[in-house]
Amino acid sequence: MKTITGLSAFPITPVDEAGVVDTETLQRLLARLVAAGVDSIGLLGSTGSYAYLTRAERLRAIEAAVECVAGRVPLLVGIGALRTDEASELARDALRADVQMGLLAPVSYVPLQEHEVFEHFQAVSEVGLPLCIYNNPGTTHFSFTPELVGRLAELPNIVAVKNPAPGVGEIGDLHADLLARVPSDFSLGYSVDWHAGQALLAGGDAWYSALAGLYPDIALRLTRAAQGGRTEEVAQLNRQLEPVWRLFRAYSSYRVMHLAASREGFGEAQPIRPVLPLADEAARDVETVLERSGLT
Amino acid sequence: MKTITGLSAFPITPVDEAGVVDTETLQRLLARLVAAGVDSIGLLGSTGSYAYLTRAERLRAIEAAVECVAGRVPLLVGIGALRTDEASELARDALRADVQMGLLAPVSYVPLQEHEVFEHFQAVSEVGLPLCIYNNPGTTHFSFTPELVGRLAELPNIVAVKNPAPGVGEIGDLHADLLARVPSDFSLGYSVDWHAGQALLAGGDAWYSALAGLYPDIALRLTRAAQGGRTEEVAQLNRQLEPVWRLFRAYSSYRVMHLAASREGFGEAQPIRPVLPLADEAARDVETVLERSGLT
Repeated sequence: MKTITGLSAFPITPVDEAGVVDTETLQRLLARLVAAGVDSIGLLGSTGSYAYLTRAERLRAIEAAVECVAGRVPLLVGIGALRTDEASELARDALRADVQMGLLAPVSYVPLQEHEVFEHFQAVSEVGLPLCIYNNPGTTHFSFTPELVGRLAELPNIVAVKNPAPGVGEIGDLHADLLARVPSDFSLGYSVDWHAGQALLAGGDAWYSALAGLYPDIALRLTRAAQGGRTEEVAQLNRQLEPVWRLFRAYSSYRVMHLAASREGFGEAQPIRPVLPLADEAARDVETVLERSGLT
Repeated sequence: MKTITGLSAFPITPVDEAGVVDTETLQRLLARLVAAGVDSIGLLGSTGSYAYLTRAERLRAIEAAVECVAGRVPLLVGIGALRTDEASELARDALRADVQMGLLAPVSYVPLQEHEVFEHFQAVSEVGLPLCIYNNPGTTHFSFTPELVGRLAELPNIVAVKNPAPGVGEIGDLHADLLARVPSDFSLGYSVDWHAGQALLAGGDAWYSALAGLYPDIALRLTRAAQGGRTEEVAQLNRQLEPVWRLFRAYSSYRVMHLAASREGFGEAQPIRPVLPLADEAARDVETVLERSGLT
């Protein structure tokens, strides 16, 4: 059986200026996602600021999440770090806290070579936590080829991949290529919210969604429509969401979802500096779109 | 008077597998640079693994360097970090340790916007340590425009820039553009070793050099030739060094200089994982070139 299917919701992590996690607000946010019926939760993803948080704060967030979610949906947790030993320590923390899976991104400073990424994943996988390959070239500046995903999928604890979904013209070929290289129980999931419906229609197992981290209902409707092969309903929902997708492309989903979470009453929901809250025209643009979107 | 001129040598930082700095080996390496007569030393640059080291280990490296260099040449220290508050803390550490300047790179995970980088630099500059803008798009994935350098140069403590030198066809225009935007005592320096001679000939104030971090003598010959306007001597030295420049382009100067330092007796000199030591063909290629280069 595949480990990750359907909708995986990636919330922000509410933090103060010093990077201290507001666990009470985090639990309120997670309770909303569980109540909506998402299929899994991706804590401490890129949207959840994992790269900016200390090991201690990541562990506080994990423990608050485990307490709140209480096994009702699988909990995936970002364990990416610049160093292999750090990523392994984060994997051990996650394993001890009883989360279901680690999301491992090849965070880089010196640009990494393919064999270095392979050995990095191999080392972290030996901790024993099931891992999802977190392929996010826009932030890590490393891009996984289908061939490398296939080689990593042979390792015992690497059970899923989150790939950025390309546009409708390319997703079919990419998905077929990946499918041919991985075991049948390996989960092939996709991010990039505005392409995700098409990726699910093309056979993708899961949608790793920033939108669903705050607005799970509409993301679930889109997910269920795509899982049911209802092409026209997917297209209709994407038309409804296009103003939001435009915001994500213009300002990044990271910045947009922080402002949106703040609007929805989840604390100040500020990004971590140097990333700044959206201001002036950009903030007004987001506010206007969210008001008209009818998302909540 | 400009703060940074001539040759700035960027050594590796000798560390063990756990990221603990070998201060004794570091001091031997720094002593070699001081004895050769370099004009400044760039400790904890990209070549010096700053991005991979904890605050405590960076401070140990700084204190060992301050002790060894003892004011004989200016000491510049990498203070880049993913978070603004962390970079400010590193600047405070450097200031207290009495180094002459901080090298501030806009390390990123979420891609940064120009106004975010401006505010990041402004916040860190308020610590009071003189700063060099460390423009290294290959690792930070942010590129400074001359216009942004000009705006930052107006801040009291931002006194220098290290830009990647473009090729001979573009350096003249870039340097003239920068020169028109900064105060007359602002230092305009360049990295990218294989373009540095031309950058100095075009009027650049300083060469920030990975090669010089281990092989200061030949880098000084090239620097002095360029400072003296001896175009033919610069060209001759670049021809001699071209096999080394090829290695830097093929494997990165970070990986090559670690192997070279190990060959020269500076400990194991391993990169920090996930970056791996060069092996097999790549290692043989580097060994062969270094043997034939007559660098030491």
